Amino acid sequence: MSSGVVQTLIDELGRLPGIGPKSAQRIAFHLIKMAEPDALRLSDAIVDAKTKVVFCQRCWNLAEAALCSICADDRRDDHVLCVVEEPRDVVAIERTGDFRGRYHVLHGAMSPMDGIGPEQLKIRELLVRLGDEPISEVILCTNPNLEGEATALFLARSLKVIPDLVVTRLASGLPVGGDLEYVDEVTLGRALSGRRNLDS
Amino acid sequence: MSSGVVQTLIDELGRLPGIGPKSAQRIAFHLIKMAEPDALRLSDAIVDAKTKVVFCQRCWNLAEAALCSICADDRRDDHVLCVVEEPRDVVAIERTGDFRGRYHVLHGAMSPMDGIGPEQLKIRELLVRLGDEPISEVILCTNPNLEGEATALFLARSLKVIPDLVVTRLASGLPVGGDLEYVDEVTLGRALSGRRNLDS
Repeated sequence: MSSGVVQTLIDELGRLPGIGPKSAQRIAFHLIKMAEPDALRLSDAIVDAKTKVVFCQRCWNLAEAALCSICADDRRDDHVLCVVEEPRDVVAIERTGDFRGRYHVLHGAMSPMDGIGPEQLKIRELLVRLGDEPISEVILCTNPNLEGEATALFLARSLKVIPDLVVTRLASGLPVGGDLEYVDEVTLGRALSGRRNLDS
Repeated sequence: MSSGVVQTLIDELGRLPGIGPKSAQRIAFHLIKMAEPDALRLSDAIVDAKTKVVFCQRCWNLAEAALCSICADDRRDDHVLCVVEEPRDVVAIERTGDFRGRYHVLHGAMSPMDGIGPEQLKIRELLVRLGDEPISEVILCTNPNLEGEATALFLARSLKVIPDLVVTRLASGLPVGGDLEYVDEVTLGRALSGRRNLDS
């Protein structure tokens, strides 16, 4: 075969991240075999997400209104701000249940190779917020990789000029439940240099 | 967060085969970041597949008309019929380029545990075709697992009553490019019992 419509579906599914040609084919045949309302719920969800989801005007997280659900929540702490690369990082931190402050989504990390400098990120918007809002601590939660570290370093330097602002970075170290033997040497080195007193 | 629309998309993606919660989230955020026309091409492809794809009236393969592209092709050999479980198996066999006959899709395999007997499969339709069409060989291409073997055995017995019909089964044996050491003992046993003369 393949019939044109089926091949189109396989091709479109194959464009998604982490879906190879075999998975795309498997999912396509599954969708075709599914009850029609179930399959159409997925296509509707895609259309809805593309047409209804916008960026929060304050923190640039995903939102369905001018403000995202976190910015619209009065019970959050206005004094602590978590700076992350992507909306998915907000989801990851929210899942810990350990953070009650607010977020700022940069929409990327600095990567000169890809032509992404500070101007391409929501850094100007971050500085405006730091002037307008009663923020006393900024936690730099960019990824612990080259681009994320460079972005954190750049932000830490830029934010130094703001008086009385505490700037912190997520701790690097051993993953909980991990095994010393299998941890890479850079992470182990970080865990060593970041060691803490047990009574602290 | 998550905003309702985004969570709905993640949930719907998570229902697809082989996509866990993490992948569903990753794909959802990817779709939201994609250019709108690209994302909507996927939702359109799903709608198209669900509304335009039907089953071929002759072989029960996927089709966009009364006959699938293979049944509609005059150059195929009417004398050899490949019986498969699912439309995806037709794709797999077509990809070999080694088969020029026609297909019959059973839409499943016998599985008493799941309440699937001969009546739930397109077996009656197969018998009608064997009466109507000039088929001289039926190749049973069901999967080499419990259900597929049971279905092949059942079909082989049912087709015995038809005079001059040759019924064959796909060979079991070592996968090409495989390694003897890593082949399971059942497959190796089949490969041994199915050994061929090198001059044949």
